[in-house]
Amino acid sequence: MGTAQHQERAGEREPRQERSRATRRRLLEAAVACLADKGVAGSTVGAVAERAGVSRGAAQHHFRTREDLFTAALRHMSDTRMDELRARAERLPSGPGRTEAVVEMLVDAYCGPVFSAAVQLWASAASDPALRASVIPLEEHVGREAHRAAVEVLGADESAPGVRETVQATLDMGRGLGLAALLTDDTERRRRIVRQWARILDRELDPPRR
Amino acid sequence: MGTAQHQERAGEREPRQERSRATRRRLLEAAVACLADKGVAGSTVGAVAERAGVSRGAAQHHFRTREDLFTAALRHMSDTRMDELRARAERLPSGPGRTEAVVEMLVDAYCGPVFSAAVQLWASAASDPALRASVIPLEEHVGREAHRAAVEVLGADESAPGVRETVQATLDMGRGLGLAALLTDDTERRRRIVRQWARILDRELDPPRR
Repeated sequence: MGTAQHQERAGEREPRQERSRATRRRLLEAAVACLADKGVAGSTVGAVAERAGVSRGAAQHHFRTREDLFTAALRHMSDTRMDELRARAERLPSGPGRTEAVVEMLVDAYCGPVFSAAVQLWASAASDPALRASVIPLEEHVGREAHRAAVEVLGADESAPGVRETVQATLDMGRGLGLAALLTDDTERRRRIVRQWARILDRELDPPRR
Repeated sequence: MGTAQHQERAGEREPRQERSRATRRRLLEAAVACLADKGVAGSTVGAVAERAGVSRGAAQHHFRTREDLFTAALRHMSDTRMDELRARAERLPSGPGRTEAVVEMLVDAYCGPVFSAAVQLWASAASDPALRASVIPLEEHVGREAHRAAVEVLGADESAPGVRETVQATLDMGRGLGLAALLTDDTERRRRIVRQWARILDRELDPPRR
């Protein structure tokens, strides 16, 4: 095969691969929205394809089974939550409002449609060992990354007694606020709790200022 | 109808009513276990009847539809969690271990099979408006009772700024720990967080001791 011909073929392949990636991404985003709204029972490959505006055949080319789709959606959700965490960590203000912005950032990692979709898969994983095997390592990965990010942006010294648990408790509180938000719009209550918890963290993590 | 005859009939009715109540209770307990293990999809009236060792006909006499069963199960779960809270509130130790026992009690209201069953119904409620209409007021009721109990047993002064939010945060943290426990056995990590949270509460709610 001549080089020119080879390059031409590669050039043809490129936009096809790009289109394929874009379709896959659209399907994963539709899966997240579908899971958050309709739960696992309402998130068939067909329903997700329709929501994505993709033919059922094209959807099945990407995800042969619902399990394939859910596993890929879990990874997509985990990546989305971590990208969002990283982006927000870079935009954090310095000065007196910083701790509150950090707590808000951590709590937000457990709120919104991506987390709601994740909870649907967690609930389903309780009775589905294969799904469980995908859910647990990915959620642990998000948890570890969120913890690492929290320690870094808070400048927390985990060698001091109790500090590690205080950071973990912050994430658990965020997860609990996210679960509450699944049922009702809890924004106002959440805002007040975030503010109060930031005050507590300032006292707990920076003892010299006490 | 003579009085003696009337009393005899009432006497016959009594054990029948008792048996009926016992059957209903067995069905509700089986529904909780079934929801926690198998989720909403696996919790048909038939599956719950089998688990309870009750005939399908008898189960359908008590709960004509799955919706009836779920609504009654939600109320049963809410009652169970509140009875447990009240019983534990009465057994709390006094002295230095009290705050930790309080936090453990509150966290436990969000852990275990009854909470797991509740999460299955919450997840399902996201796409089921009728179920949602049952879930929200009952969960708010449990939340209010748990908050009231927490304030009482902690001797917290909610007129002081931030105290109300600190107590709310404690319950949200408990809910988050419960959600984590849905997937993995988290007992050891939870114990350390409960201990640290109790230390924080002692500092936050009892400033003169600082």
